[in-house]
Amino acid sequence: MPDASVLAPVDVAAFDAKLAASRAASRVLATATTQQKDAALEAIAASIETAADRIVPANDLDLANGRENGLSQGLLDRLRLDETRLISLAAAVREVVGLTDPVGESVRGRALPNGLRIDQVRVPLGVVGAIYEARPNVTVDIAALALKSGNAAVLRGGSAAENTNRVLVELLQDAVESAGLPRGSVQTVDEFGRDGARALMRARGAVDVLIPRGSAGLIETVVTESTVPVIETGAGVVHVFLDESADESWAVDIVHNAKVQRPSVCNALETLLVHEAAADRLLAPVLGRLRQAGVTIHGDDAVRARFADAVPADDEDWATEYMSLDLAVRVVRDIDEAMDHIRTYSTHHTESIITNDLRNAERFLAEVDSAVVMVNASTRFTDGGEFGFGAEVGISTQKLHARGPMGLPELTSTKWLVRGSGQSRA
Amino acid sequence: MPDASVLAPVDVAAFDAKLAASRAASRVLATATTQQKDAALEAIAASIETAADRIVPANDLDLANGRENGLSQGLLDRLRLDETRLISLAAAVREVVGLTDPVGESVRGRALPNGLRIDQVRVPLGVVGAIYEARPNVTVDIAALALKSGNAAVLRGGSAAENTNRVLVELLQDAVESAGLPRGSVQTVDEFGRDGARALMRARGAVDVLIPRGSAGLIETVVTESTVPVIETGAGVVHVFLDESADESWAVDIVHNAKVQRPSVCNALETLLVHEAAADRLLAPVLGRLRQAGVTIHGDDAVRARFADAVPADDEDWATEYMSLDLAVRVVRDIDEAMDHIRTYSTHHTESIITNDLRNAERFLAEVDSAVVMVNASTRFTDGGEFGFGAEVGISTQKLHARGPMGLPELTSTKWLVRGSGQSRA
Repeated sequence: MPDASVLAPVDVAAFDAKLAASRAASRVLATATTQQKDAALEAIAASIETAADRIVPANDLDLANGRENGLSQGLLDRLRLDETRLISLAAAVREVVGLTDPVGESVRGRALPNGLRIDQVRVPLGVVGAIYEARPNVTVDIAALALKSGNAAVLRGGSAAENTNRVLVELLQDAVESAGLPRGSVQTVDEFGRDGARALMRARGAVDVLIPRGSAGLIETVVTESTVPVIETGAGVVHVFLDESADESWAVDIVHNAKVQRPSVCNALETLLVHEAAADRLLAPVLGRLRQAGVTIHGDDAVRARFADAVPADDEDWATEYMSLDLAVRVVRDIDEAMDHIRTYSTHHTESIITNDLRNAERFLAEVDSAVVMVNASTRFTDGGEFGFGAEVGISTQKLHARGPMGLPELTSTKWLVRGSGQSRA
Repeated sequence: MPDASVLAPVDVAAFDAKLAASRAASRVLATATTQQKDAALEAIAASIETAADRIVPANDLDLANGRENGLSQGLLDRLRLDETRLISLAAAVREVVGLTDPVGESVRGRALPNGLRIDQVRVPLGVVGAIYEARPNVTVDIAALALKSGNAAVLRGGSAAENTNRVLVELLQDAVESAGLPRGSVQTVDEFGRDGARALMRARGAVDVLIPRGSAGLIETVVTESTVPVIETGAGVVHVFLDESADESWAVDIVHNAKVQRPSVCNALETLLVHEAAADRLLAPVLGRLRQAGVTIHGDDAVRARFADAVPADDEDWATEYMSLDLAVRVVRDIDEAMDHIRTYSTHHTESIITNDLRNAERFLAEVDSAVVMVNASTRFTDGGEFGFGAEVGISTQKLHARGPMGLPELTSTKWLVRGSGQSRA
């Protein structure tokens, strides 16, 4: 149960009651059929489409408050839910309907010599908590994914989107109730403010897993302070290594795609490493193409010897997730120095080698310790949708439970079912 | 890196150096072949058999200190490593040689429409930390399992076994070195005392997972204080429910086996629930057999109406893991009341229903939220060995990453390998 010290006494009771309702709902959801859950998801999609007249004004209020509080244009854009975005949001919910329900799936099973039949099957985690920042679409995305995988969701969506989220959660609750499932299946603790987020982090036993989504600072806080198990999604200091034998057109296209296509996301390229024997051949076309796209190059001495206008790069550049049209570039002696660099600075998200050398490709795949390791492909492919998982829960950069793009199975646990006929242990 | 505040400055450097050696070793182990790892395990087994003249005197010293410090007979027994036990310990290591190496196993994989080939394969976790109490056999068990699954092990074994563990770790290091693997594959931080345990809990990034094994207090401390991800192994307030239709001989045998065969372990029965319509038929034979075995019955009013000498049971009994020849017994109205009771008091380890009613069997399997749920079988079967996993890492009572008996696959993470031919994202 939550740590009383972080909430006022009057709030402790209200908070506990909410989590108790989540637990009760999770029990119903755990044995709900796929048909029931899909019906609730259809009701949610329909409700988002038809309730624009309630959602948009609430969102306008949040946007007005955001402007007053000096939110950046980028944040205001992420906060905005207009009619077009509501239609895509409803479509995303319907996509979840189309995904395979992981609950009940057999993971492994066998008959033991004594006749016991043991089966490991997927079950929901139970109550899934999410702490995120002002992106109201995440409210619907996570609720939909949690529902499909049989989990109750408890959401803390950030004060900047409070009005939008309040309306969305009411709509979600009405929709799941209309499909015969408990309103407690989706709840928000936004009304408790920051204290609610902290209480969620201490709600060990009441919340089964906590997923932080957002800035590095938010994730670090949740990881450090939470006594509830956390799935860390996160930062990507992503590398591409151009090996000596890299194909020039692949190198140019992949580096451009990885850096430029969407620089603000975690699978975008941040540091390019180039084999010194390929530097003369590849740096000009690769960096030339990037500069046409407006990319600022931060280079080491070897890079600046060729591109005098590159910004000098230092240790801080190697460790930075720019999330912008900036790229750190370093010339390395060989694949070993490239992998040493990656070992030192990588956040273990995604790294790719561009090579035609089989031995180096296999060494890179085997030795680089990241969630996703690629040969001759753009790092932008590290994505639940691209991997065929449908909607996106997040990309786990931790090693326990889930690693890389998270699909619905990653929102489940397992349970062993043992069927006997009177067996006792010898 | 470890939190400097918990160690003296001189120790911080030594501690950091140890963990750096573990990380370096983990890189070698990650790509070691099964043959190399098995050769190291064979060397360990041989060394344990031949070095009794070094291990036993160190163990005698720990035993003498333990007696002086008033350790209980039970703890002294767990601390003891005599020649017979060393032979079984070596045999346990050889069993690990026989287990399938999980590293490299394909979990899932496919070709994407754009021609990318994606494969999720098992990889070692990296550096596995273990904190446990005075059981020197755990030092060897965990080192062997970690080694087979390609992980470096960092051990904190408790001051009561310090001399035994020091010798064991030296032997383990000599053995892995003789097989061409790094000494850093197995290390102890016992020399840092309690501070070493605390530093291990803060070594986020340097240690990939921490496994506490031991008392509920130890586990609680690790779970609460650790910033390193933890796999909680643990307490078992284990239930058997005798349904109305339970076969009498199955009920008698299974309850006796679950309670009496080894009462001090986590899968032993602690609370028996009996359907009121079966109480007259079953309580006499079931409890009669237990009393012959010396079990003390703690009963509710309905039990005490039949067995006047039963100790009155209260809420505390329902919540207690006795780990002794004591059993709490309660008569319930029906399966719903039985499952309510389990929901309230279970530690989500193992529960079993004895029944001939198919609907109730399936409801129990579906609705009881525990790591292992059984029909007509003794709870003592919740065990890695019994499940065919070979040696025992522990039984996870958490929902993330591992649930129930942990085998070698539970000591691994996964990694996505992506093989392309120049693909960029559209």
